[in-house]
Amino acid sequence: MTTGGFPSTTSLPVKDIGRLLLRCDDRPGLVASISSFLSEAGANIISLDQHSTAQTGGTFMQRTIFHMPGLSAARDEMERAFSDRVAGKFGMDFQLTEAAKPKRVAILASREDHCLLDLLWRNRRGELDMSVVMVISNHPDLADQVRPFGVPFLHVPAHKDIRAEAETRKLELLRGNVDLVVLARYMQVLTPRFLGEIGCPLINIHHSFLPAFVGEAPYRKAKERGVKLVGATAHYVTEELDEGPIIEQDVVRVDHRHGVDDLRRLGADVERVVLSRAVLWHCEDRVVRHGNQTIVF
Amino acid sequence: MTTGGFPSTTSLPVKDIGRLLLRCDDRPGLVASISSFLSEAGANIISLDQHSTAQTGGTFMQRTIFHMPGLSAARDEMERAFSDRVAGKFGMDFQLTEAAKPKRVAILASREDHCLLDLLWRNRRGELDMSVVMVISNHPDLADQVRPFGVPFLHVPAHKDIRAEAETRKLELLRGNVDLVVLARYMQVLTPRFLGEIGCPLINIHHSFLPAFVGEAPYRKAKERGVKLVGATAHYVTEELDEGPIIEQDVVRVDHRHGVDDLRRLGADVERVVLSRAVLWHCEDRVVRHGNQTIVF
Amino acid sequence: MTTGGFPSTTSLPVKDIGRLLLRCDDRPGLVASISSFLSEAGANIISLDQHSTAQTGGTFMQRTIFHMPGLSAARDEMERAFSDRVAGKFGMDFQLTEAAKPKRVAILASREDHCLLDLLWRNRRGELDMSVVMVISNHPDLADQVRPFGVPFLHVPAHKDIRAEAETRKLELLRGNVDLVVLARYMQVLTPRFLGEIGCPLINIHHSFLPAFVGEAPYRKAKERGVKLVGATAHYVTEELDEGPIIEQDVVRVDHRHGVDDLRRLGADVERVVLSRAVLWHCEDRVVRHGNQTIVF
Amino acid sequence: MTTGGFPSTTSLPVKDIGRLLLRCDDRPGLVASISSFLSEAGANIISLDQHSTAQTGGTFMQRTIFHMPGLSAARDEMERAFSDRVAGKFGMDFQLTEAAKPKRVAILASREDHCLLDLLWRNRRGELDMSVVMVISNHPDLADQVRPFGVPFLHVPAHKDIRAEAETRKLELLRGNVDLVVLARYMQVLTPRFLGEIGCPLINIHHSFLPAFVGEAPYRKAKERGVKLVGATAHYVTEELDEGPIIEQDVVRVDHRHGVDDLRRLGADVERVVLSRAVLWHCEDRVVRHGNQTIVF
Repeated sequence: MTTGGFPSTTSLPVKDIGRLLLRCDDRPGLVASISSFLSEAGANIISLDQHSTAQTGGTFMQRTIFHMPGLSAARDEMERAFSDRVAGKFGMDFQLTEAAKPKRVAILASREDHCLLDLLWRNRRGELDMSVVMVISNHPDLADQVRPFGVPFLHVPAHKDIRAEAETRKLELLRGNVDLVVLARYMQVLTPRFLGEIGCPLINIHHSFLPAFVGEAPYRKAKERGVKLVGATAHYVTEELDEGPIIEQDVVRVDHRHGVDDLRRLGADVERVVLSRAVLWHCEDRVVRHGNQTIVF
Repeated sequence: MTTGGFPSTTSLPVKDIGRLLLRCDDRPGLVASISSFLSEAGANIISLDQHSTAQTGGTFMQRTIFHMPGLSAARDEMERAFSDRVAGKFGMDFQLTEAAKPKRVAILASREDHCLLDLLWRNRRGELDMSVVMVISNHPDLADQVRPFGVPFLHVPAHKDIRAEAETRKLELLRGNVDLVVLARYMQVLTPRFLGEIGCPLINIHHSFLPAFVGEAPYRKAKERGVKLVGATAHYVTEELDEGPIIEQDVVRVDHRHGVDDLRRLGADVERVVLSRAVLWHCEDRVVRHGNQTIVF
Repeated sequence: MTTGGFPSTTSLPVKDIGRLLLRCDDRPGLVASISSFLSEAGANIISLDQHSTAQTGGTFMQRTIFHMPGLSAARDEMERAFSDRVAGKFGMDFQLTEAAKPKRVAILASREDHCLLDLLWRNRRGELDMSVVMVISNHPDLADQVRPFGVPFLHVPAHKDIRAEAETRKLELLRGNVDLVVLARYMQVLTPRFLGEIGCPLINIHHSFLPAFVGEAPYRKAKERGVKLVGATAHYVTEELDEGPIIEQDVVRVDHRHGVDDLRRLGADVERVVLSRAVLWHCEDRVVRHGNQTIVF
Repeated sequence: MTTGGFPSTTSLPVKDIGRLLLRCDDRPGLVASISSFLSEAGANIISLDQHSTAQTGGTFMQRTIFHMPGLSAARDEMERAFSDRVAGKFGMDFQLTEAAKPKRVAILASREDHCLLDLLWRNRRGELDMSVVMVISNHPDLADQVRPFGVPFLHVPAHKDIRAEAETRKLELLRGNVDLVVLARYMQVLTPRFLGEIGCPLINIHHSFLPAFVGEAPYRKAKERGVKLVGATAHYVTEELDEGPIIEQDVVRVDHRHGVDDLRRLGADVERVVLSRAVLWHCEDRVVRHGNQTIVF
C-alpha cells in the first residue's frame, strides 16, 4: 500500500484562492491575530494547518488557504498590510501566493526516463500544480519523448572537464526564469557555486531510503547488504550531497530472488511516485524547511 | 508498511491541556471568533485542525488543543462563556474536554484474546489515553488473562435465548459508568434497544475490509473469492450491522498458499492494530462523525 | 510501501530458456517424474515452484524454468515426449513455452490514458515480457500518444447500438493475432459471444478493491461509504462482470479530505501498477487459474 | 499494509511431516536426484522451494516439505541413506527435521516488554512453531508478566563490570538446552567468546531500518535526520554489531508531528511484528544463510 498523501488543490477552482505560509517564534495569540486579519480583509479560511516544534518556546509554522474575492488585484496591498499589522509585530517570515499562479519549473534529467516522463505526464493530466518551462539534459536521448508534451528540450552537455562552462550555461537558462528546479535522476554533480547562484530551491530524488546507501550505486549496495526493502528519497538539494532536508520517502519489498536489475526496476516505481509527491507538495506551498527537516502540511 | 497515524498526546504533560471539538454550518469568521475567544480566555493554542465538507456552504468542523493555566477550575465557566459568546451565535455543537481526564472504557470480548490483550497491554504501557473500568465477556475463558492487568473481569453469559436478560445485565453495569464501549471481537448481536439505552458510543472491529465481506465468516469468504489482501475495519456501531461510520481500516497481503486459518492469523494482526488506533483516536477526541462518515483529525 | 512482486526474467538472457506450466491431480512421485524427464532431456532446472490445493488429494500445479541448449529446435519433439511419457500417465494439462518468444498482446482502451501509457512505457523500457501488436480504442483521442511508441492505433467506434458490429470488427482484428487482450480502462461491455470467440485470455483492471464496489462509479461509492483505503483489482475476464479470477490487488490510503476527484487521481496510480504487475506475471507464465482463483508463482 | 509473509505450517497436522533443507554447488540433475530419493523412500513432496544464486555456476539451495508415514521411526535411517546416496555425491550440506519436534527457544530481554510479550502471546495462541524453555533478563522487572505463561523467568544481572561472569552463567543455562536464542530488545553486548560458545544461532531485533542508524539511539537519530519512515530489522547475530544477515525488515510512516517518544511507540509495533516473523520463519526451517544474506523460503 502506498500513502496517497494530500488532497490536491488542483482539483479545486483556483480563482481568488490564496495561500499564506508563515514561520515565527511561538507565542500566545498568533492564530487569533492571523485569522482576525484575514477575516477583516474579507478572506474566508478554507483550510488551516499549524505546527509548533515544542509545546512552548518553539518555532511556530502555519499554512492557511483562504478565499478572497478580487485577490489578484488586492494581493500587493494585502501583503503590505499583513507585513505592517501582523508579521512585523511577531517577527514573522511569510509568503503570500495565489493558487492561480502555478510555479515555473525546470526539470534536469540525464538518460533515465521514468521520473521525467512521469512528471510530464502527471502535469499534462492536471495532477501537478506547475508549469514546466524547460527540460535540460546532458544527453540528447530523451528529446523525442519530451517535445510531444509541448515542453522545450535543451541539450547542455556536461561532464567533469567542462563543469564550469556547463553550469554557466544552465544558470543563464534558469536564473530568473524558474521558481523550482527538479533533478529527475540528473547524474551530474552541482557545485556550491551553482547552488549559490541559482536563486531558487532544487528538489532531488535519491534512489535509496536515506540515510542508508548514500552516494553511488545504492541498489548494488542494497543487494550486497541483503536488505528486504529498497526505497527512494526526495529532498531539497544542499551543498552536502544526499544530506538535504527530506520531503518524502517510500519503500518497496524485495527478496533474495531479486537481482540488482530487479531492484533498479522496482525502485524506479518508487522513485517516480516519491518525486512526484514531493514536487506536488512543494508547488502547493505545503513544505516548510526547518533546519535539516521539513514540515509538510 | 503500516501507517503510524497521529502523534500521541499521551506522551505530553496533560495538566492544563484542553480540547475543544466543534461542528457548525460553515461561514466566514469562524476561526477568528474561536481563536479570539481562546486568546482572551488566556488559552494558548497548541494545535488546531479544521475541515469543511465543501469550499462554501458545507459543514465546518474543528479540533483545537490548547494550554490554559488553571483549566480544571475554570472549565465550567469557560464552557458557559463559549456557549454564550461563540457557540450560540454560530449554531455550534461543541464539546470541551480536559486531557487530564481520560475516558472511562469498557471492553466486551468473547473467546478471542488478541484484540482484548493488545488494548490492555497498550494501556498499561501508557499508549492509550483511557481508563479501562471493566471487561465483560460472555465466556469465562479470558478471566485469568485480564485480571493481572488490574481490570475487573465480569462474566455475563449471553446467547440467543437469554438475549434480553443479558442485555439488561450489561446495561446495569455500563450505563453511566463508561464513556465508551469497545467490542473486541465480541460475537453477540446487540439489539437496537441496547444501542438506544447505552448512552455512549460503541466501537467495533470487523474482520474484513468493509464493505467487502459483510456479515459472518469473512476470512472464509475472502479465501473463496481468491482476494490478494485481507483487512480489518474499526467502526462506530449503529443499528445496521457492519454499516456504521468507519474510523480506520488496514490490510495485509495474502496469496494462494494461505488457507483460511492463515488468513485468520494474519488478519488478527491487522485487527488488533486497527482497533487500537481507532480507540486511541476516539479517546483523544480526534474523531468527528458526519453522517455515515468520520473525520479523523 | 508497495509489494514489488517477482523478479523479472526479462533481465535474464532468454536464449534456450523454457517454461513448463502444468496441472493435474496430486499424487506421489510427480516432482520426481517431471524433474527426471527434464534431466534426461538435457535440461537444467533454474527454478521450480509448485503448489497443492490440499495436503493430500488436491490439485497439483507446477511452474518450472529450465535451460536447455538448442531448445528452439528441440521444442516440438520435447513437447511430444513429455506428453507421451509424463503428462499422459498423470492426466496433466501442460504448456511448454520459450522465454525467447514474447506473448503478442493487444491493449483495448477508451479515453483514460494512465493504464495504457504505463504499459507502453514499461514495455519500451524492457520491463514487460510482451510484444504489443495493436491498441484498439473506441475513441480517437489517444492516437497521438500511442503511435510514437511504434504501436498501431486502431479506432473502432463502439456503443450500445452498434455493439455487434463493433465486436465483429474487433474479433477480425484480434482472433489468431494475439495471445492476450488487456483491457486498460476499456469502458465497453464485452458480450459472452465475444468472450467465447476471442480465443485468448483477457485481463481487466477494475478500479476498486473487489469485491467491494462492483459495477460503476466505485470511487464515488467509496467516498459515500467513507472508506479509509481505495484500491484496484486486476482479474481475468469472465462472463460474470467483475467476478473473474483475481490476479493482483493493491490499495492506497485516503481520508476525509479527499474528494471523489482525489480518489480517482490516487486510485489511478494503484490501477496502473496493479495492471502492469498482472500483465507481466501473465506474460511470464506465472499465473495458473484454478476455479475462480489464481495461483501466481 | 503489512506483508503477511508465509503460510504457517503450524496450522497443519505435523505428524509424519519432514523438512529437508540443503545447500550445494549448483549442477544439473539436483532436483531429480533429491525428488527421486524421496519418492523411493515413500515420501510425498508437499512443497518444494529452491533458489540458485546464479543462472549457472552458483549456489543451489532447496527446502522440501514432505509427508512420510512412520517418519519418526525412520528418520535416522533416512538421514544416513540421504547422506550416502545423495548428499555425498553432490557435496551437500543438509538438515533433516521433523515438524512434530518444535525448536527449543530461549528469549533474552531487558526492561522493554513489547517484543517479549508478543512472542509469548503468539506462541500461546499456537502461531509460532517453538517451545520457549526459558526467559533470561538482566532485570527482574518482567518476571510477573512472564511466569503466567508457564515459562521459567531467570534473572541474570549483567553489566560491564561483571560481563564475563554473567556470560558464563548464561552459557551454563543455555548451552545444549536450546536450539535458538532470541534477543528481544536485550540491551547487553554479547562478546565473541559468548557467540563462539553458545552453539546455536541467535536472532536480534534492531530498532531501525538497517543499515540506516546503526548503533545506539536510532529513533533519536531518525528524528534528527527528519526521515519520513522508521523501521526495524531482525537479523542473525554475528561478531560485527548490527551487521549480521538480515532476515526481515519493515517500516512505519511518520511525520514532523511525531516526537522521539512517538517514533519509539510506533517503532515498537514494527519491532514486535518483524521479530515474530523472523522467529517463526527460522523455527519453520525457512531461512538459509548465504554469506551475509539470507534466503527465506
